[in-house]
Amino acid sequence: MKARVDFATAEALIRQRVEDWLKALRAKDVDGVLSLYAPDLVSFDFTPSLRYVGADGKRRAWQEAFVALHGPLGYEVRDLNVTMNGELAFVHSLNHVNVTLPSDSIDMWLRWTACFRQVAGVWLIVHDHVSVPADPVNGMAVRNLKP
Amino acid sequence: MKARVDFATAEALIRQRVEDWLKALRAKDVDGVLSLYAPDLVSFDFTPSLRYVGADGKRRAWQEAFVALHGPLGYEVRDLNVTMNGELAFVHSLNHVNVTLPSDSIDMWLRWTACFRQVAGVWLIVHDHVSVPADPVNGMAVRNLKP
Repeated sequence: MKARVDFATAEALIRQRVEDWLKALRAKDVDGVLSLYAPDLVSFDFTPSLRYVGADGKRRAWQEAFVALHGPLGYEVRDLNVTMNGELAFVHSLNHVNVTLPSDSIDMWLRWTACFRQVAGVWLIVHDHVSVPADPVNGMAVRNLKP
Repeated sequence: MKARVDFATAEALIRQRVEDWLKALRAKDVDGVLSLYAPDLVSFDFTPSLRYVGADGKRRAWQEAFVALHGPLGYEVRDLNVTMNGELAFVHSLNHVNVTLPSDSIDMWLRWTACFRQVAGVWLIVHDHVSVPADPVNGMAVRNLKP
C-alpha cells in the first residue's frame, strides 16, 4: 500500500513539473523554463542541430523563440504518459503549438519525449526529443498532422 | 560494490539488446527486430503518422522498409548513452542509415531515443522516438546533418 501511494505521489510530482514548465513557457519566462533542464541535458530538438549538449543550448533556443513570437504562445500537452521507477522517469505526449510570427502563423502538433532523473531531490529533464515526422517522398517535415 | 556490479551488468544487458536489434536489422529479420518491442509500444517514428500504438505498426514499418531496399541495410548506432534505474532504462544515440532504394540512395543520421522496461525479466522498448530536425525556414526535414 505504501509503495502504491509513493508511486502515485511521484507521478503527481512529474506531472506537476510538466505543468510548471507549461506555465513558464506560456509566460515566456526563460528562467522558469530552464529550471526543468539538467545542466548536462542532451537534446534532440525540433530544429537543427542534430543534437546539442547542455542547458545553454536550450536557453538560446527558447530565447530566440520568445523573441520571434508576436502575441501569446499557445502550447498544450496532450496524452501525457508517465513511466517511472525509483529516481528515473520518462514521459511522452503530443504537444500543440499555436503561435504567430511576423511572417507566418504556426499551428502544429509535435511529438515530445522527456527523460527525467531525480537529482538531489529535484526531477530534471536529462534528455529530450522533439520532432514531427518526415515525408519520405517529398522530404518535407510534416507539420499538418493532428492526433 | 554489489550494487555497482549489478548496475554494470544491467547496462551491459541493455547494450547487448541494442546489439541484437542491430544484427536483426542488418539481416532484415523482422521477427528478430520485433523481439525488442513491447506489444503495447508507443512509437513516434521517422515517417508519418504522428504516433502509433502497438508493435504491429512497427512490424509493418520495418517490413515495408525491408521490401523497399535494394542490397544491404547499413545501420550504425553511435554515442549510445544508457541511463537506468531498477527496471527502467532509456537510451539515446545518433544512428547512421545507409541504404539503396530503387530510385534513390539514402545516407543520413537519425536521432534515436528508446525507453526500455524490464517485463518478466526481459528488457523491452515500450516507447521510441526517431527523427531528423526540421528546417524552420523552408520546412524541409534536414537529412544532411552529420555528428
